[in-house]
Amino acid sequence: MASPIRFDTDPSRYRHLRLEIDGEIARIVIEADEQGGIAPGYELKLNSYDLGVDIELHDAIQRLRFCHPQVRAVVLTSGLDKVFCAGANIRMLAQAGHAQKVNFCKFTNETRNAIEEAGTDSGQAYLAAVNGNAAGGGYELALACDEIIMIDDGSAAVSLPEVPLLAVLPGTGGLTRLVDKRKVRKDLADVVATRSEGVRAKTAVDWGLVDAIAPPSKFGQAVLDRARAAAARSRRAPGGPGIELTPLDREVRDEGLRYPNVTAAFDRAAGLVTITVHAPPAGAPASLAAAREQGAGFWPLAVTRELDDLILWLRTNETELGTWLIKTSGDAATVLGYERLLAGAAGRDWLADEIRHFAKRTLRRLDVTSRSLFALIEPGSCFAGPLAELALACDRQFMLNGLPDGELAPGAGQAPGPATLTLSAANFGAFPMSNGLSRLASRFPGDPGHVAKLEQLTGRPVEAEEALGLGLVTFAPDDLDWEDEIRIACEERASLSPDALTGMEANLRFAGPETPQTKIFGRLTAWQNWVFTRPNASGPEGALRRYGTGQAGVFDRNRA
Amino acid sequence: MASPIRFDTDPSRYRHLRLEIDGEIARIVIEADEQGGIAPGYELKLNSYDLGVDIELHDAIQRLRFCHPQVRAVVLTSGLDKVFCAGANIRMLAQAGHAQKVNFCKFTNETRNAIEEAGTDSGQAYLAAVNGNAAGGGYELALACDEIIMIDDGSAAVSLPEVPLLAVLPGTGGLTRLVDKRKVRKDLADVVATRSEGVRAKTAVDWGLVDAIAPPSKFGQAVLDRARAAAARSRRAPGGPGIELTPLDREVRDEGLRYPNVTAAFDRAAGLVTITVHAPPAGAPASLAAAREQGAGFWPLAVTRELDDLILWLRTNETELGTWLIKTSGDAATVLGYERLLAGAAGRDWLADEIRHFAKRTLRRLDVTSRSLFALIEPGSCFAGPLAELALACDRQFMLNGLPDGELAPGAGQAPGPATLTLSAANFGAFPMSNGLSRLASRFPGDPGHVAKLEQLTGRPVEAEEALGLGLVTFAPDDLDWEDEIRIACEERASLSPDALTGMEANLRFAGPETPQTKIFGRLTAWQNWVFTRPNASGPEGALRRYGTGQAGVFDRNRA
Repeated sequence: MASPIRFDTDPSRYRHLRLEIDGEIARIVIEADEQGGIAPGYELKLNSYDLGVDIELHDAIQRLRFCHPQVRAVVLTSGLDKVFCAGANIRMLAQAGHAQKVNFCKFTNETRNAIEEAGTDSGQAYLAAVNGNAAGGGYELALACDEIIMIDDGSAAVSLPEVPLLAVLPGTGGLTRLVDKRKVRKDLADVVATRSEGVRAKTAVDWGLVDAIAPPSKFGQAVLDRARAAAARSRRAPGGPGIELTPLDREVRDEGLRYPNVTAAFDRAAGLVTITVHAPPAGAPASLAAAREQGAGFWPLAVTRELDDLILWLRTNETELGTWLIKTSGDAATVLGYERLLAGAAGRDWLADEIRHFAKRTLRRLDVTSRSLFALIEPGSCFAGPLAELALACDRQFMLNGLPDGELAPGAGQAPGPATLTLSAANFGAFPMSNGLSRLASRFPGDPGHVAKLEQLTGRPVEAEEALGLGLVTFAPDDLDWEDEIRIACEERASLSPDALTGMEANLRFAGPETPQTKIFGRLTAWQNWVFTRPNASGPEGALRRYGTGQAGVFDRNRA
Repeated sequence: MASPIRFDTDPSRYRHLRLEIDGEIARIVIEADEQGGIAPGYELKLNSYDLGVDIELHDAIQRLRFCHPQVRAVVLTSGLDKVFCAGANIRMLAQAGHAQKVNFCKFTNETRNAIEEAGTDSGQAYLAAVNGNAAGGGYELALACDEIIMIDDGSAAVSLPEVPLLAVLPGTGGLTRLVDKRKVRKDLADVVATRSEGVRAKTAVDWGLVDAIAPPSKFGQAVLDRARAAAARSRRAPGGPGIELTPLDREVRDEGLRYPNVTAAFDRAAGLVTITVHAPPAGAPASLAAAREQGAGFWPLAVTRELDDLILWLRTNETELGTWLIKTSGDAATVLGYERLLAGAAGRDWLADEIRHFAKRTLRRLDVTSRSLFALIEPGSCFAGPLAELALACDRQFMLNGLPDGELAPGAGQAPGPATLTLSAANFGAFPMSNGLSRLASRFPGDPGHVAKLEQLTGRPVEAEEALGLGLVTFAPDDLDWEDEIRIACEERASLSPDALTGMEANLRFAGPETPQTKIFGRLTAWQNWVFTRPNASGPEGALRRYGTGQAGVFDRNRA
């Protein structure tokens, strides 16, 4: 594989964005460096984006929340004249392999969801100031914002030209957000999504494609007025100054990755990675003020950053590691102590809120990760509260029943007791899945009474047999069977078709209600993945491959 | 193309099923004729099915409702020993082209939905009497029933071996029905869907995969007891004797199809078919008793049967006709008269109910049809009530504003007035889409007040300008522009990628809530279609293609 993609950056390294802060209002100004593509072979003209641009956007959204807590409204706009954003770079897409396209779309979708959640969760509403053409992913980026203000200059248009020009879908939530978020009439959405030239300002506001329009002379002021109004409505919790998100301490080796609180060990022959999340080495600080002094090293923030980075790294750079074994290590009571500190300040302290929202987003990233996820709950592990949520995000939970038989290695200290799983208030709504349900509610969709019963167990460590009886784990082999059972389950998983597993997991993980987010990852993404594989888009004569060559795509006209 | 597939049959022609009626209880006994495949190249061993088997099942379900109104519970079982049903025939699937596979899955899904709706809508509950192995689509067939009773003979298993054996998904609703209908825990569903040998009776009932088990000596009685209990719970409306579903009068020519009340004219060069639904030639009978005397010729039943058959015919046999133009012709008041007769007996007469449920299913078939649907509302048309629903099911509605300019042809009789659209009570909940919303509620998802306002218009013909203002139609060109505008819209549609259109339409048509049905057609089907296109399933070394050869599939291990 080529050099790995890194998802961590900081504003000093941005090539495509400017982040401007002015009191309560921030501006993210996109001005893509045409020569700054993350891969060779294309130029980022007209503010088109690739993964490199999106990594900066992702970073900027994250930093606004943690480093600039005073910000209450964010204006997303373009530094170019007459152009807001031309969407995903088409040559980049055309030259990308299938897995790359799919992974790129997943990350961009997650980033757009992060924009929406900044408004709903964190009181940082986004306003798209569409100062010129917003095409395809450019308009979809605006659709992810809370409000869209569009310049009415007689030429700017919003458009979704993917279907007519490229024979693919607006795959970054556009179709879903038109009808499900903005409630655009579906026949009008049909017109928008098939009209390559798009829709100018007056019709756009009539059809509900944007919220407001303004002539060039009044555009800047209109944007500012709306940003101020959004800031005034913000319910962002108070708290101290921002936290500096210092560079991640990540050691990369061929056999795995190592962060201070998270390790990943690869077994390439078996297609496995073992991820271990380590409990804090010391108890929680006495107060949030003391936590703040720990900065980015404060364990709940540090471990979430590391896990989030690891998920992105593995998804992008280690596509043959199809099964992730998820373990924890350390003291459960310490984990719960940190969680109590944060939960106690919920709604009253922006930092406590941000850390938990970040954990929620990271867990959701896991939910949509196209890898098989097995939790291994062993003696010495600390699946408690937020870390129990990690186990519940997995496709299966294996819990060792009783104690290992072997002798303790010399110098290993006291042997841990039997494996336990500890639920806390965190497991009953603090980290909802993107379908709006807690992972426990989604695990027992037909049985709210059982979830209520589980709530009675809050704080009590539950051993394997009881956990099995309560349905908290899938299997609870004893020490005699443990290694064989895990090995067989991993070998079996590795023998199955990666595509079939991806489809199966995507269908099983989201029982219950659907939301725009689940529709984007379930319905829209699945159709887009299908369309991407079809010769009409990606074959040698397909429209995506031929775009820009002057030759139109040649289509098999049979409908499937 | 080879000789077309016909979806109409009758019990005298069944090769794979027996339909047995005993008072309130019916039995559908599957005993597939191994040599009776609808295409050459495979044998229907172990009660595996192909489209031909499913066409008979579809017919039997329909006839039970119309011809046997006294039936209140249906036992679905197998005539083979130790085998319930082995699911879709794998060699058939392996040799089918992509579009064939997708179309086959769609029809089988619709038929399984019809089984569920027979219970909820029509008081004919289905009981799967699983008297032996139920594998893959065989278990999915049982999952579509209201209850599953399984024989506990130490060998029978229910299984979903698609992922482990074939590298495809259980594509007929299995994954969705496990977690969303039966509320099976998702980690257990993961185990079920990856374990090729399946699950025996005791575990099956523990995990919620079946409702009850019985040893062989008590199985027959247990099934009968449950069938009687289901019949006793049935709220099937009373009414007269059954209606004979006489053979369809369908004339097939190269340029189109003609039924008494529906015509379809092909324009192969343009990839178009114009479907015209004709209003009844005479007013509604005075009573349902009089309607009953008309039998299958009673217009609402006749026109629905014809339209349903036409949709299936076109979907399967005319895959290059990508755009369907939907017209109506005749007197709107007459259409509404028939609808009043049926609506007036709702809940009190099984025939009135069945006809409207049938229309609901037919409209839902249209909703999931992978063709672009344009309604053309012209002078002389009768888009009123149930037929207005046809227009609302379309992706776009074009309505001619004013009167055509030309002179009337000699002998053409009186010129019709301007085109109108007439809403009736039928448009506000009588024919819900599979997301549970009326088509109007789904058209104005953000605006229940507007839907309430439209309800005030019930019964009043609305002309084009008003309809445009109310958002009931997409465009309302006048006579000067009408032909050009329709022609351009059709040409534009024909120029687009069929796959991209299918994906786009599937995403736009179902704004709002999701149900198991929409999840099956949206999420599950899209993933299955994707998996079907992937080399791991359908490539020369793919598991689906290699099944039965003794060679395992060879997989690209990269996760996408």
